[in-house]
Amino acid sequence: MAAKKVLITGAAGNIGTELRARLKERYTLRLLDRRPIPEPQGQALVCDLGDLGGLEAACAGMDAVVHLAGNPGNSALWEVLMEDNIKGTYNLFEAARRQGVKRVVFASTNHVTGYYEREGIYTTPEMQERPDSLYGVSKAFGEDLGRFYVDEHGMGVICLRIGSFQPEEAVKQRRGDRILSTWLSPRDCAQLVWRGIEAEEVKFGIFYGISGNKRAYWEIENACRLLGYAPEDDAERFA
Amino acid sequence: MAAKKVLITGAAGNIGTELRARLKERYTLRLLDRRPIPEPQGQALVCDLGDLGGLEAACAGMDAVVHLAGNPGNSALWEVLMEDNIKGTYNLFEAARRQGVKRVVFASTNHVTGYYEREGIYTTPEMQERPDSLYGVSKAFGEDLGRFYVDEHGMGVICLRIGSFQPEEAVKQRRGDRILSTWLSPRDCAQLVWRGIEAEEVKFGIFYGISGNKRAYWEIENACRLLGYAPEDDAERFA
Repeated sequence: MAAKKVLITGAAGNIGTELRARLKERYTLRLLDRRPIPEPQGQALVCDLGDLGGLEAACAGMDAVVHLAGNPGNSALWEVLMEDNIKGTYNLFEAARRQGVKRVVFASTNHVTGYYEREGIYTTPEMQERPDSLYGVSKAFGEDLGRFYVDEHGMGVICLRIGSFQPEEAVKQRRGDRILSTWLSPRDCAQLVWRGIEAEEVKFGIFYGISGNKRAYWEIENACRLLGYAPEDDAERFA
Repeated sequence: MAAKKVLITGAAGNIGTELRARLKERYTLRLLDRRPIPEPQGQALVCDLGDLGGLEAACAGMDAVVHLAGNPGNSALWEVLMEDNIKGTYNLFEAARRQGVKRVVFASTNHVTGYYEREGIYTTPEMQERPDSLYGVSKAFGEDLGRFYVDEHGMGVICLRIGSFQPEEAVKQRRGDRILSTWLSPRDCAQLVWRGIEAEEVKFGIFYGISGNKRAYWEIENACRLLGYAPEDDAERFA
């Protein structure tokens, strides 16, 4: 069976750079970023999320899209979030739909429910949104939009509320202990993404993206049960 | 005690026109619309939701804002929804915050969860969003944004997922029977809004806005319990 064709947006970013290295043998990759992508694994495109036509061309022929592009700053300004995360995510979903892409893995964030964490409340994916930033609000929008594309257009959408994506070194050299709860190792991130692509029977789902951290306060049971996620890392070994 | 000062946005619209007639004795009203408001009850302002400065001026000195303005079309285009419902709602919340307004009643919609209805699923306000339109997605955004303003800025926000707001005549002359389940009479709408303004101990809540319809499939128990809502109408008498 031929490898699936997968578009990664934001491929020049921190997560994108790790993902494309880790997924290049599993999939035929097409990479997109608004910056030139250094040492691309596969076809590389420079395209902004504001360019719907460019996104359509990028989506053509793809089996799945991993949508990492967008502004990742928890203190980003509204004007930037509007363009990159709201308009940009709409353009991405719409381009994917127009090109018949069957599956999108959407990089959401733990900040969609950040106020539970601030209040010390253990959080499951079923709980209502309590964003702790406009960034979190912009990602909640992406999740709701994804749900609409599932129900209305039959797409499959997996939302990953990514925790603290960092290499091991960052956990070792940490300043505080939050990352012991929130860490997502690069290899666990790659696993979550490919399991999200492969679990075609799951039409929509919201999953926290963290490693199997002993101190976790975000539930990953549904990722294990529905996607088959079996994390290999636990930040506790750096405690 | 002096009457509270309440700003109604979208005051020239269908709901706004009924509300200002029904709330004028309870509150000192300030009315805002992008169109001139015919026969205003109180101060009338012409202002577009794109005008943050104008919204700030409108919010100055207000005890509460009832935010009805926005595009109400369930088949509205994305570009319009972006401006009116996404940017516009952000501008409204931000203007209210900057002016120290303590409470916003936000006109949301049943379309935030419209796919449950399509699948015949009884819906409660705690269930996850399943919008049946981009309009529904845009209102889900407003709810999430409201939640953020509550948690981050200490505002009080009441989201009313309005059903079918219609005069009695429309129920009598109905084509289908959906409105027997989804009707919100003008007087019940006015009651929900003022109870939302008065229930200051409720910092955030999502409530379906319908009359006490026997055939309802959206739960209003939380509105009765938390806001003291006691609907006077039931579409069943027109069945």
